[in-house]
Amino acid sequence: MANPYNTFVSKSQQIADIGNSIAVLSWDKEVNLPKGSARFRSQQISTLATLAHSLMVDKKYLRLVEKLAKSTSLNRQQKKNVALTLESIQKATKFDADFVRRRSQLISQAYHDWVKAKDANDHTIFLPSLEKLVELKKEEAQIIGYKKHPYNALLDMYEPKLTVDKLDTLFTPLKRSLKKILRQIQAAKQVQNSFLYTRYPEKTQWKYGLDILEQIGYDFNFGRQDISIHPFTTSFSSQDVRVTTRIDENDFSNMLWSCIHEGGHALYEMGLPPEQYGLPLGEAVSLGIHESQSRLWENNVGRSLAFWKHNFKSLKTKFPKQLEGISLNKFYKAINKVAPNLIRTEADELHYHFHVIIRYEIEKELMEGKMSVNDIKKNWNKKYKSYLGVDVPDDARGMLQDIHWSHGSFGYFPTYSIGSLYAAQFYAQAKSDIQDLEKQISKGNSTPLLEWLRDNIHQHGRMYYPEQLCKRITGEGLNAKHFLNYAKEKYSDIYRIR
Amino acid sequence: MANPYNTFVSKSQQIADIGNSIAVLSWDKEVNLPKGSARFRSQQISTLATLAHSLMVDKKYLRLVEKLAKSTSLNRQQKKNVALTLESIQKATKFDADFVRRRSQLISQAYHDWVKAKDANDHTIFLPSLEKLVELKKEEAQIIGYKKHPYNALLDMYEPKLTVDKLDTLFTPLKRSLKKILRQIQAAKQVQNSFLYTRYPEKTQWKYGLDILEQIGYDFNFGRQDISIHPFTTSFSSQDVRVTTRIDENDFSNMLWSCIHEGGHALYEMGLPPEQYGLPLGEAVSLGIHESQSRLWENNVGRSLAFWKHNFKSLKTKFPKQLEGISLNKFYKAINKVAPNLIRTEADELHYHFHVIIRYEIEKELMEGKMSVNDIKKNWNKKYKSYLGVDVPDDARGMLQDIHWSHGSFGYFPTYSIGSLYAAQFYAQAKSDIQDLEKQISKGNSTPLLEWLRDNIHQHGRMYYPEQLCKRITGEGLNAKHFLNYAKEKYSDIYRIR
Repeated sequence: MANPYNTFVSKSQQIADIGNSIAVLSWDKEVNLPKGSARFRSQQISTLATLAHSLMVDKKYLRLVEKLAKSTSLNRQQKKNVALTLESIQKATKFDADFVRRRSQLISQAYHDWVKAKDANDHTIFLPSLEKLVELKKEEAQIIGYKKHPYNALLDMYEPKLTVDKLDTLFTPLKRSLKKILRQIQAAKQVQNSFLYTRYPEKTQWKYGLDILEQIGYDFNFGRQDISIHPFTTSFSSQDVRVTTRIDENDFSNMLWSCIHEGGHALYEMGLPPEQYGLPLGEAVSLGIHESQSRLWENNVGRSLAFWKHNFKSLKTKFPKQLEGISLNKFYKAINKVAPNLIRTEADELHYHFHVIIRYEIEKELMEGKMSVNDIKKNWNKKYKSYLGVDVPDDARGMLQDIHWSHGSFGYFPTYSIGSLYAAQFYAQAKSDIQDLEKQISKGNSTPLLEWLRDNIHQHGRMYYPEQLCKRITGEGLNAKHFLNYAKEKYSDIYRIR
Repeated sequence: MANPYNTFVSKSQQIADIGNSIAVLSWDKEVNLPKGSARFRSQQISTLATLAHSLMVDKKYLRLVEKLAKSTSLNRQQKKNVALTLESIQKATKFDADFVRRRSQLISQAYHDWVKAKDANDHTIFLPSLEKLVELKKEEAQIIGYKKHPYNALLDMYEPKLTVDKLDTLFTPLKRSLKKILRQIQAAKQVQNSFLYTRYPEKTQWKYGLDILEQIGYDFNFGRQDISIHPFTTSFSSQDVRVTTRIDENDFSNMLWSCIHEGGHALYEMGLPPEQYGLPLGEAVSLGIHESQSRLWENNVGRSLAFWKHNFKSLKTKFPKQLEGISLNKFYKAINKVAPNLIRTEADELHYHFHVIIRYEIEKELMEGKMSVNDIKKNWNKKYKSYLGVDVPDDARGMLQDIHWSHGSFGYFPTYSIGSLYAAQFYAQAKSDIQDLEKQISKGNSTPLLEWLRDNIHQHGRMYYPEQLCKRITGEGLNAKHFLNYAKEKYSDIYRIR
């Protein structure tokens, strides 16, 4: 008779195989799909999703996992795989077919309406769907169950154990301190970065991006980069992790940051243990930790002076005209220019948090029933004025800018900030663990850092909850002070504050 | 209650969705896969294949189809879809799980051994697997059942209703007549084609290939071309049909013929009715008819004087140096140069049939038990000497050249010849149905031909068996005389015979 744990592994891998097949079809949709081919591709993806779900909630699978959960002969890792799988099955089975169908129909409709509304620059087109989505999300929170705040149920889907209390504890002082730093920056001499917006030829950008990916440790034997409208990372196994980028000839930073950001995500996926393929210990632990990996490489490494000490010379060789007369120091300041703007994805690393906090505050009130969808625009624009000092000129650059709500992804945005905070905390720890870390980076050697991340984070998959992981690595839970220390030190220097 | 025919459609489409997902994963494997990513990709494909099979042989599906097969309320098309599906299920259920597992294991092993044998240029490495494969194929023929000859069971898998008797009736006079033409050609003044083997830059070739694809009617809104080691066509629906090509800078014809050949396959797939997606009437009828579409565009159109009357000028603009001093007539002769060679895929359209016939004669004797696998090499080399006049210098260019046997694809090769014969017969009919067909082609307009193919062949899917389809179109079954007439006329002119 087959070993029940092996049977469990093979059934879990079967479900993962379907999920990863969906990922291939979705990647292909973004990267390769001919204009007229969307119809059947959507149907194919939806068929696979239905199949994966039906295998996930299959009674025989549940009974096997329940039996294993009581077994005493499993090792620690096996126990964790079984426990987390049982949890996932139990969550999946909470939703009846009717709810799943209603949700999937509403999301299709909402996405359609959001695209239409954004094109027409008119948020009212999106409101009816959005209202239904908020109601559905409230229902979903009830079905999942929660303590204290219905929004906790949604947060937990993306960041296990994250709560409103925790976020408020993080965001309140973060807001206060960031406002202070930003006031100081505003009063200081502003940074010039217009040379980043001259013409940088596409091909040279593309090649440069590949070089940078390779330098940070992305292994092209197990991945590739392609072009898509919105950059993203996708994984079909830890041995096939792909990134995409976009290239704007008049905005060099666009490609540069998307490359390093997605590269950071990819390094995480590539570092997950292949022998745990299809099992929780072969999966990323949360969106926040995932984002910490992308932000760490993008901001803490990619926007550091050390990184450009090594790379600026070769960058200048590639773009001699564009960077004529620009010193390393001037370049470093330019890529760290701080200025408020309207669009989250284009924000500097300080203002970024306000973009996230605005969405968080709105989502929380929507879930509490304190705000109606009709009031989002008013609140949104008010908050942008108050936190960022900018007037929102239209809906497309206002409350319609992000796709997430149209997908029903409420509770997702906070992980973006959480990710940056984790990144700073991890990076501070890495610097203390690896004595000459920044010196190595300034020599073009990021291997010690990557190995540190592999050891401390990647190899564990979902073995520890995010905060547990953080405690193991840094001795404490998530704490915004590491980010604030990093920000103060870096920007005091750049803007010569005090 | 749901209409049972609609339920049947939706279940069939579900199976097709999985099949088409496998096709996407396989296409990606050939076109995009990073070097180190093969392991999990193979597992993902195998999981989807198992799922598709289990849905195909699901008892509820069978009962539904059986019930519908007795229904009196279906229209002609619906009846055909049901009847053909029932046939497919019955075939699929003939094989028990043990046989399917043995077959799939043996094929993996055989492919592995064939690659090793070809690399080592030593057929004996492949013989043990090959022997088992022949035994398995005999067993498979017994399971499927057949009349007269076990090989008929295998032929029917690729070309419904094709038999050894039919092939012998076709091939015997074909061999005789071809030998006569080839003798005449050998005695005539030989054609010069060395200018096709000077350097043709990759990028210009690539662009030219895209232009040619567009000209024959390939619609890039519903497809794309990429590069792969071996050119192929794949379809994920009739609205997403992709081709690949390869480019050899020192062999312009390589890219050119692969483009037109795969383009012909793709036009067939693109012409299948999308409203029959996932159903037999949305599928190609047979490999022979499929090959007729690629060969018709490649040989009857692509290697015709009319086609180059239109295209030669623009070709010369793209490759002025390479074609300096070359006239249209010289070019036309060069691309139709007849000379025996060792490799099937590089054969001219006359010698091609001998490459196929050799494999057919060997396969037939293997299935009859008249030849042992140990004697294949001896027979292979003897036949190449006798039919083509060439000495086979080694195994890699001899019996190991084709991948097919390693896949267990016995009975497949004949469809290559059948395809060329159908192509000639269809093209002769098209010329008689469309009065100024060649004139239109010489003006760069192949739309009338494509429309004729759409009307007569593509739109029907599997409505008619191959020969039935041929009779409907040309008034008779497959007859090699059309190919021979075409060959005699064309090559008498090129080689000035009599």
